[in-house]
Amino acid sequence: MTQLTAVAWDGDAVRYLDQRLLPHEVRYVRARTVDEIVEAIKSLAVRGAPCIGVFGAYGVALLRGAIADDAAFAEAARRVRGARPTAVNLAWAVDRVLASSDALETARAIHEEQIAIDEAIAANGLALIPKGARVITHCNTGPLATAAGGTALGVLLAAQRGGKKPRVFVDETRPLLQGSRLNYLELREAGADAVLIVDGAAAITIKEQGVDLAIVGADRVARNGDTANKIGTYGLAIAAAHHGVPFYVAAPRSTFDLSIASGAEIPIEERSADEVASFAGVRAAPDDAVAYNPAFDVTPGHLVSGFITEYGILRPPYLESIPALEFCPRILSG
Amino acid sequence: MTQLTAVAWDGDAVRYLDQRLLPHEVRYVRARTVDEIVEAIKSLAVRGAPCIGVFGAYGVALLRGAIADDAAFAEAARRVRGARPTAVNLAWAVDRVLASSDALETARAIHEEQIAIDEAIAANGLALIPKGARVITHCNTGPLATAAGGTALGVLLAAQRGGKKPRVFVDETRPLLQGSRLNYLELREAGADAVLIVDGAAAITIKEQGVDLAIVGADRVARNGDTANKIGTYGLAIAAAHHGVPFYVAAPRSTFDLSIASGAEIPIEERSADEVASFAGVRAAPDDAVAYNPAFDVTPGHLVSGFITEYGILRPPYLESIPALEFCPRILSG
Repeated sequence: MTQLTAVAWDGDAVRYLDQRLLPHEVRYVRARTVDEIVEAIKSLAVRGAPCIGVFGAYGVALLRGAIADDAAFAEAARRVRGARPTAVNLAWAVDRVLASSDALETARAIHEEQIAIDEAIAANGLALIPKGARVITHCNTGPLATAAGGTALGVLLAAQRGGKKPRVFVDETRPLLQGSRLNYLELREAGADAVLIVDGAAAITIKEQGVDLAIVGADRVARNGDTANKIGTYGLAIAAAHHGVPFYVAAPRSTFDLSIASGAEIPIEERSADEVASFAGVRAAPDDAVAYNPAFDVTPGHLVSGFITEYGILRPPYLESIPALEFCPRILSG
Repeated sequence: MTQLTAVAWDGDAVRYLDQRLLPHEVRYVRARTVDEIVEAIKSLAVRGAPCIGVFGAYGVALLRGAIADDAAFAEAARRVRGARPTAVNLAWAVDRVLASSDALETARAIHEEQIAIDEAIAANGLALIPKGARVITHCNTGPLATAAGGTALGVLLAAQRGGKKPRVFVDETRPLLQGSRLNYLELREAGADAVLIVDGAAAITIKEQGVDLAIVGADRVARNGDTANKIGTYGLAIAAAHHGVPFYVAAPRSTFDLSIASGAEIPIEERSADEVASFAGVRAAPDDAVAYNPAFDVTPGHLVSGFITEYGILRPPYLESIPALEFCPRILSG
């Protein structure tokens, strides 16, 4: 497992690893103000839906202690809550801290729960991974993404620890290269057999390299199973379906938004054209290039073979299995 | 149309534009030896299947004049012919020069033919592009790729000139970013409405941006319509089929290899892991990263709606329409 710590409470600050600098530099930063907390999220220095949730919870706990004026605190919490619109975990975690009597205790509970939840997801997902499986994945969903054990990558890391030795094809995940920079790093540190591919090679990899299953994380899942996740997930799901390869989404309860009926209600964040027009800081396209840069896409539920949650594997019909999450007990009492 | 000249005969050298440096720098280089000719092809300074064919033809004509010894010349020509294995145009052009009595005259004829062929492809493809069409394309297939008017991009540039004003979604085309670096440049110089996307955004772009058709080039097409083209093409074809969007391949007669029954017989060049782990010398993944980096993939013929050739649009069943190419007259007498 990685020695890198995505997020930690640090007394008078929330300490985070600036993930934009990986794999080349390990730099920890202490966020102490609302501006620093919001900027860390917006700039993707802290990223991964569950990790943002943990970070946002600690951030609001920090601000609760630092801002005496209730109106000013409410405004600061609102800014943290809205720093990224697509992932549901951030708003969920902030709301839970705001509703509690002890902000820091609740933030710590959210973090401890995330660790327990990821362990349960890994345990539940393990049954889906054959020994020596060939697996394809997209974007980073390991410990760096959750501030705990990881979701989709957590399942694969558990398979590696359990001796199943999966071969993992890692989509590089343009534009921000979370696959090359983070997933590859986390798999290699675990001694796993990781093979990097460009996103466009996913279809031929599935066909020619005997891929057994695809497994990804999620930023938000609707009641019908429609899944918002990092841009490129939808194309991977279509390619998997085309080849009859199962496509799994690993996500905790907090990623499911039971208030929305379908993916049409999920706001999709569009980001700067510069992310597309450059690669790791190097311009590839002309300076004034126009780009369409949605940070996420929505994979329809009918392309998802199952959801790996801390409570077990949810199977279709999702309009029955997903709303039932409402009645699941919390993994830990917060 | 672009003012950039991909390849030109230059008396005692073959002049080429080093396409690796675009869009930032326009540098012309004179190749005078077999090593320089082979290296220009292998390094992708000269790229695009028809462009490599024209360059290889001029190259062999140059070497015919420079190397008196027949055995040494044959060895030099063999090296040029084998500089890249997937595209059929290179071997086809070199063989034609070798079989002729006047090497330079034949090389010039191949270049002039390419210009006439691309004009015919553009004219034939134009009927497939509605006014105001939204089109998605992959890799570079413009004048830089053919040393003439272009194939797939040639059709779109003709549509632009004809007032149809297509909106073209340009896959960036990792790992070498021919889309961002070359297609975008060529479309912008033509005043066309070009929108850059990461390759992973193709599926959601097709779904959400009302794409009417996909159009790409090819490096080699088998008798059954199986098409080798730049890595990422297969995934795009699957995504187009999933959304019921027509998927066209624009390619000249010389790209069709009537000697092979299917794509299983097309050798796929695998390139260095460094291409995936970096761009323009900037590393994204750890230094020793392992990657699977096929330069091409094969799209099965059943996913291709039609082939736009200089003779017209070939439609399924391809086992009838493609072998009939054998009986088509040359566009120009060479």
